[in-house]
Amino acid sequence: MKLAIIGAGKIVQDFLTVAGQIDGLELTAIAGMPSDAAALDALQAKYGIGKTYTDSTAAINDPDVDTVYVAVPNSLHFAVSKQALQAGKNVICEKPFVPTRKEAEELKALADQHNLILVEAITNQYLENFAGIKSALSGIGTPRIAEFNYSQYSSRYDAFRAGTVLPAFDPAKGGGALMDLNIYNIHMVVGLFGKPTVVHYLPNMQRGVDTSGILTLTYPHMQAVCIAAKDAGAPVRSMLEGEDGTIVIDGPTNELQQYEVQQRGADNHVYRLNQASHRMVAEFTRFVQMIANHDTGAANEAFTHSTDVLDVLSAARTSIQ
Amino acid sequence: MKLAIIGAGKIVQDFLTVAGQIDGLELTAIAGMPSDAAALDALQAKYGIGKTYTDSTAAINDPDVDTVYVAVPNSLHFAVSKQALQAGKNVICEKPFVPTRKEAEELKALADQHNLILVEAITNQYLENFAGIKSALSGIGTPRIAEFNYSQYSSRYDAFRAGTVLPAFDPAKGGGALMDLNIYNIHMVVGLFGKPTVVHYLPNMQRGVDTSGILTLTYPHMQAVCIAAKDAGAPVRSMLEGEDGTIVIDGPTNELQQYEVQQRGADNHVYRLNQASHRMVAEFTRFVQMIANHDTGAANEAFTHSTDVLDVLSAARTSIQ
Repeated sequence: MKLAIIGAGKIVQDFLTVAGQIDGLELTAIAGMPSDAAALDALQAKYGIGKTYTDSTAAINDPDVDTVYVAVPNSLHFAVSKQALQAGKNVICEKPFVPTRKEAEELKALADQHNLILVEAITNQYLENFAGIKSALSGIGTPRIAEFNYSQYSSRYDAFRAGTVLPAFDPAKGGGALMDLNIYNIHMVVGLFGKPTVVHYLPNMQRGVDTSGILTLTYPHMQAVCIAAKDAGAPVRSMLEGEDGTIVIDGPTNELQQYEVQQRGADNHVYRLNQASHRMVAEFTRFVQMIANHDTGAANEAFTHSTDVLDVLSAARTSIQ
Repeated sequence: MKLAIIGAGKIVQDFLTVAGQIDGLELTAIAGMPSDAAALDALQAKYGIGKTYTDSTAAINDPDVDTVYVAVPNSLHFAVSKQALQAGKNVICEKPFVPTRKEAEELKALADQHNLILVEAITNQYLENFAGIKSALSGIGTPRIAEFNYSQYSSRYDAFRAGTVLPAFDPAKGGGALMDLNIYNIHMVVGLFGKPTVVHYLPNMQRGVDTSGILTLTYPHMQAVCIAAKDAGAPVRSMLEGEDGTIVIDGPTNELQQYEVQQRGADNHVYRLNQASHRMVAEFTRFVQMIANHDTGAANEAFTHSTDVLDVLSAARTSIQ
């Protein structure tokens, strides 16, 4: 996979620390804003990236590139992904994917038309601990309560309190707790249980953005709650409570550091199945494989999951209007 | 306080193990069903109770009794409390108090008319850790998320799964997760933050009863969720997430065994303020004082709290109709 990274923000800098661990990944190019030029050169030198661009179109059209990693602000995900697909490049788009199912399906049609892979980068779905939790569900009986919490005081919330709205809190840029931290919880619930029948979102709104909130998801035999806060933090933990046992997931739902299976009448077992220490290694390893093998089956499955999540987000937004 | 206990179920047997620790409490009488006669005699012998009755009216009218502890099935709380007040006795009524504010106010009018104390027995409101948590709120800034979970697999749920509906799962007897375990969570939220503006209940209904469920409570600047399950268990923990810190409450919300205050930028502190090892000692100690001092101020305050909780329960029931 000859990758062009579009974006030079926090997630990209985090990704670059582990990109070298991913077999078959070539860092062909990185693109940012003209104001990022010095930072791009520094990243190029540090991580051995082939080329730098201060024009994303040029990076996307680079003939050496076969795949574009879209890591621009949320509000630009759709436009940049569309441009890359039209240029004949596979696309790995950061979460949250695109605004609604409509945009996702437009991108998918383009990908299918050009015989390209299109996939959302969402760490937890590709972690070994996620697969472990999913298979452990059969041991806890009928699930009744699912409780996910990802509350992490944002380093940008100090500025927000002081009156400065950075992108992380700008609703026009897809900011807010639902689209940022809670997205991981939603991917967990939908990945484990599929689409809910009813969705409600109870946000704490400040200056037009949800700085925290509680999302409820109803299933035929289960109720789920997804909690996220950027205006408050907590030692987070999530739980799946079934009639015959409980799965306790420690830490934030983008990392799934470990989980414990507590079956009634049996000894508890702690599992730490993730093979890489960094949350992004498993997803990108899988993306390299998908693209190398042109695994449209896996990409289609991932797309169905992503659009189910988009439907939940749409229902959440509708519920508060 | 010369107490007649009406009821001989689990809560009464639990209470009797610590009644001897409560200064000023005299176990004047206990009443149960005729089928309880042998059990009542055994309790009388074991705990030195003055008299036994298999007729609750006789116990209530016993001239040696000044206070009646109403620990009958939930559906009889109102009738037995009313009878006791009409007989000129102070009333300590087990949670959940009575069906709605209307019945509560009818009882309160009777209590006031006869110059009697009427109070709901709800453990957590009287625990030293509750007062500690309430005063610690000022140190965690604006509260944004409150998450309470009391999930405890019911010993009666095995029977329910097998087809036998015992009172704990009989909606006609006030059974179900909302009225049993979640009541403690609701008392916590209302005791700490007052009445919410919006309430929603998402129950898992089986054969007409909520075997578990998620209740959401909206406040102007905060969202709260109260989770309870009798069809599933979990290592429960509750959290109050504020802008400047978090309070983590370990264990079930009827006991409040300990809490930890985590202020941003400061060392964490664990508190274990409860003086008694049993959850019911603090409440009954307070009831003895209230009655001895005829402390109508404290009783009125407790009544306001109890009726606020009843309003939440009514709103919860309405939200699912």
